[in-house]
Amino acid sequence: MTDITPYIILSKPQLGENIGSTARAMKNFDIEKLRLISPRDGWPNDSAYAISAGADNVLNNIEVFSTLEQGTQDISLLIATTARKRVVGTKPLNIFEAVEKAFEHTINGGKIGFLFGPEQSGLSNDDVVQADFTISIPLNKNFSSLNLSQAVLLICWEWNKIRISKAGVEKNNIILNKKLKKSTELSNVGDREYFYKQLDQMLKQSGFFYSPEMEPVVKRNIRSLFNRASLTHQDLRTLHGIVRSLSGKSNRT
Amino acid sequence: MTDITPYIILSKPQLGENIGSTARAMKNFDIEKLRLISPRDGWPNDSAYAISAGADNVLNNIEVFSTLEQGTQDISLLIATTARKRVVGTKPLNIFEAVEKAFEHTINGGKIGFLFGPEQSGLSNDDVVQADFTISIPLNKNFSSLNLSQAVLLICWEWNKIRISKAGVEKNNIILNKKLKKSTELSNVGDREYFYKQLDQMLKQSGFFYSPEMEPVVKRNIRSLFNRASLTHQDLRTLHGIVRSLSGKSNRT
Repeated sequence: MTDITPYIILSKPQLGENIGSTARAMKNFDIEKLRLISPRDGWPNDSAYAISAGADNVLNNIEVFSTLEQGTQDISLLIATTARKRVVGTKPLNIFEAVEKAFEHTINGGKIGFLFGPEQSGLSNDDVVQADFTISIPLNKNFSSLNLSQAVLLICWEWNKIRISKAGVEKNNIILNKKLKKSTELSNVGDREYFYKQLDQMLKQSGFFYSPEMEPVVKRNIRSLFNRASLTHQDLRTLHGIVRSLSGKSNRT
Repeated sequence: MTDITPYIILSKPQLGENIGSTARAMKNFDIEKLRLISPRDGWPNDSAYAISAGADNVLNNIEVFSTLEQGTQDISLLIATTARKRVVGTKPLNIFEAVEKAFEHTINGGKIGFLFGPEQSGLSNDDVVQADFTISIPLNKNFSSLNLSQAVLLICWEWNKIRISKAGVEKNNIILNKKLKKSTELSNVGDREYFYKQLDQMLKQSGFFYSPEMEPVVKRNIRSLFNRASLTHQDLRTLHGIVRSLSGKSNRT
């Protein structure tokens, strides 16, 4: 049977307590796949266990990665949670649409990641542009003070609601909808990043980045531009071919 | 104007920390009316202030009562949150029905209270029977470990969703909609096609279309790939630049 729970991915979490209470929040909704990207205080962490109130199995099965790229290699739909409006071009979705879309994606065999940034600063722009979408939790404009585990709690809660409401559907294996693409056809974040890296390099060689200080911005724009297209594996092959062909590096004769 | 926020009522809360984090959770959703029934450690309580992260005004305006009867005197619809099935005859409602019903009730001038029991034991049967309805938060049957403030958080979240959906989305200035890009920033079909044509031509020159019969299909795929990204004018300029640069046709020196 398809595994239809999402991955919760914490980028550079700072406090062990927050990792523990995130695990606890997740387990209330039967969501147990937690990944850490470069946790500040290393892993494992005693303070996380002290606070997890019995969600030990979630903590024991945590996967730790040193970069976001590695930690999202196999994720085919990555949704970044952000507290504020972003300048990067990644497409914002309202949280309910996003969870619904994500749920359908898993039903079709895709792997979902919900990405959360560090407690103090939130996600960096470089992290955000890796995502397919951003979502923000609508809060009191004069007082937005959700902590990390509360933000995770609300996402897991919404996920669980969709799961409950669609439970019958999923069992009967009926896919309601206007599906265009099978999720399994969608490219993974890792494959996309591989393409972007190659493109970066070729553009560098060809003198595209004429302003060094703008180079990181332009690279982010390119990522968010392409990520908005929900690239399939086939799309990526096409793009690789286009880039190779244009730059005269094609193997074809 | 009618005040349409509910009262959060904590019956015999034990830890000051939980009162503080409850206030903080509430304030995220602009819900500020908190009542305590016979708090174990008295009131005010320093630990509550220490943890409330700036929700001081909620704490300063707390109303304290010694019995539930006094603390719900003016409440016209009381909803008790319970973790488990009850033997008492109070009618259980599903949480979404309950919040919806409660919201309509306030619109019609009623006063709503959501009642939460002590951390360890939950509400006593004597407390529960005071309520019009009970609600339970659906959780993982093998791991139900929401703390008090998380339970309050979820209720406030659901309340806020109803408030947003009912009370004139524009007025609350909340963006429930996907369109963040101004349509004027989006590229026109003509501009896009101009880019695709240029790309087609360059790809042709570089030998990309090695199978003549597939050429039209590949061209369509390229168009649909890029069109899915909702390209802006700026995106198009970037893409033109990329293509020129890769193919060595850049004017830049």
